[in-house]
Amino acid sequence: MELNLSESWSRSIRCIVKLGGAAITRKNELETIHDENLEIVACQLRQAMIEGSAPSKVIGMDWSKKPGSSQISCHVDELGDHESTEFSRFVVVHGAGSFGHFQASRSGVHKGGLEKPIVKAGFVATRISVTSLNLEIVRALAREGIPTIGMSPFPCGWSTSKRDVASADLSTVAKSIHSGFVPVLHGDAVLDNILGCTILSGDVIIRHLAEHLKPEYVVFLTDVLGVYDRPPSEPDAVLLKEIAVEEDGGWKVVNPVLEHTDKKVETSVAAHDTTGGMETKISEAAMIAKLGIDVYIVKAATTHSQRALNGELRDVVPEDWLGTVIRFSK
Amino acid sequence: MELNLSESWSRSIRCIVKLGGAAITRKNELETIHDENLEIVACQLRQAMIEGSAPSKVIGMDWSKKPGSSQISCHVDELGDHESTEFSRFVVVHGAGSFGHFQASRSGVHKGGLEKPIVKAGFVATRISVTSLNLEIVRALAREGIPTIGMSPFPCGWSTSKRDVASADLSTVAKSIHSGFVPVLHGDAVLDNILGCTILSGDVIIRHLAEHLKPEYVVFLTDVLGVYDRPPSEPDAVLLKEIAVEEDGGWKVVNPVLEHTDKKVETSVAAHDTTGGMETKISEAAMIAKLGIDVYIVKAATTHSQRALNGELRDVVPEDWLGTVIRFSK
Repeated sequence: MELNLSESWSRSIRCIVKLGGAAITRKNELETIHDENLEIVACQLRQAMIEGSAPSKVIGMDWSKKPGSSQISCHVDELGDHESTEFSRFVVVHGAGSFGHFQASRSGVHKGGLEKPIVKAGFVATRISVTSLNLEIVRALAREGIPTIGMSPFPCGWSTSKRDVASADLSTVAKSIHSGFVPVLHGDAVLDNILGCTILSGDVIIRHLAEHLKPEYVVFLTDVLGVYDRPPSEPDAVLLKEIAVEEDGGWKVVNPVLEHTDKKVETSVAAHDTTGGMETKISEAAMIAKLGIDVYIVKAATTHSQRALNGELRDVVPEDWLGTVIRFSK
Repeated sequence: MELNLSESWSRSIRCIVKLGGAAITRKNELETIHDENLEIVACQLRQAMIEGSAPSKVIGMDWSKKPGSSQISCHVDELGDHESTEFSRFVVVHGAGSFGHFQASRSGVHKGGLEKPIVKAGFVATRISVTSLNLEIVRALAREGIPTIGMSPFPCGWSTSKRDVASADLSTVAKSIHSGFVPVLHGDAVLDNILGCTILSGDVIIRHLAEHLKPEYVVFLTDVLGVYDRPPSEPDAVLLKEIAVEEDGGWKVVNPVLEHTDKKVETSVAAHDTTGGMETKISEAAMIAKLGIDVYIVKAATTHSQRALNGELRDVVPEDWLGTVIRFSK
């Protein structure tokens, strides 16, 4: 199939997906991936990305040796006259979950002070942990035939000023997308021009990418159904199905209609989460929505996440869909 | 210790080290690291980098979970009032050895043609293999207390034009070095503006870095003593101790004095080596030497490599040192 280059350049990014740390790792087990979830997430992503209805055979792209084997399995001979699958343009960003947080919080990397030996060691240790997670996610998506490219923010030129993005070279992200690859970024330890160093969270990366790449929609995959009015473990917690973001950046719940409308939404922030929890997520999501980009917060590896990734919610949100939509209220 | 920033900026890079794929992996076992060599290499690097004579306690910087353990071992409490170790500025580049080559040669990534499904899959598979090696090398050096930052050329903005460097963003390399880190780059699959894609070899990266960072010397760590006049497995192979590079880029052996001076140096190129073998290495090394930067090709994990890394050969090459010095003949 001939690809029209000029048309291809102007084609927009369809979706930026955040794979929440809580959804793809086992939060209470140090540096442990939630393999089952990750496999389903990869499969759903592939489904959402395929253009046209023709189901296409998966071309596995992780030809690494399996543990305990001395052989590499790849069926390249079958690929000879395989037709190219047309994927729509996605960018993936993942959180750290049970990777990186231990190293970051023990050393205080998020607070800066790179001249201290413990912070410098923690910076290196944090990056080793989150880049090893990144490699595993790149591999899991590649096994599903998604042509992933791992991109670590720090070495790829991202830096911060008091934890907000100060610089980010997006040209390689754009070039990769243009060449048909799916960039996979992650929360990372970076240099900060005020603090010395800090943690750049995946949510802040998403906002920056959304501002510059203007995707059609953004999906946050998490480990609960969406945003609740109080910690979701509490019995009376109510799922907030739609949040409207206003011109001034403020936001209010429009569905369901809450009895106490001026009640602040309570959320839980895990103690080891050095980059803030649901509160940060909502305010980052609100800033994205203000750009006119719909944001869906949804439980990973469910029918609800598949529908969100497919873009089925863009016009009307079906009654039976469970999750939180955050939209700009014009 | 107070660091003078302006002085620090102007401090030069001391050494660029190439960890040859043959030295740090087991060439005949797919995707297998040569752990013993890598550990000694890391230890020798640390020794070479320490400034001043005071032996300093190693602060391990890989706090990842060990396989089979659920715990992370890090002795951060001991780090509280630990003094900062002053390291001189090194950059590390490694080859692929038994990583990446299988994926690259099976798919033909080095020949380009990214529009073919097999090449695109091979591009992703090659990068997964070489980045997993990069992570292991970053971890091994970090365990020895070297504050390493893995930098994958493709996502960090390197691209080629017919396999030679077309673009490379060195600002993050420079910033990392300035902040006291040791960048660790590697041979990688990249986009090529003529071929579509190709393999950017570690040796080409070294030359580009040498041209722009102007290190005092460059060390190639390999699995044989140095460059020989024929494949080193042959009984009469003679180690070339000194090669002089001339103004026009040509080079000749000056020590030992060979009987047939016009004899072309024969070298072996392994069949699976998609980036060329010793011939490429010598011509890349010659181009570095032409800049007035000494190049030492030496067997990894030996007393000879330690002396080369230490910079002991800069004035006089001792008679008992085994390896190959490549120098500009003024």
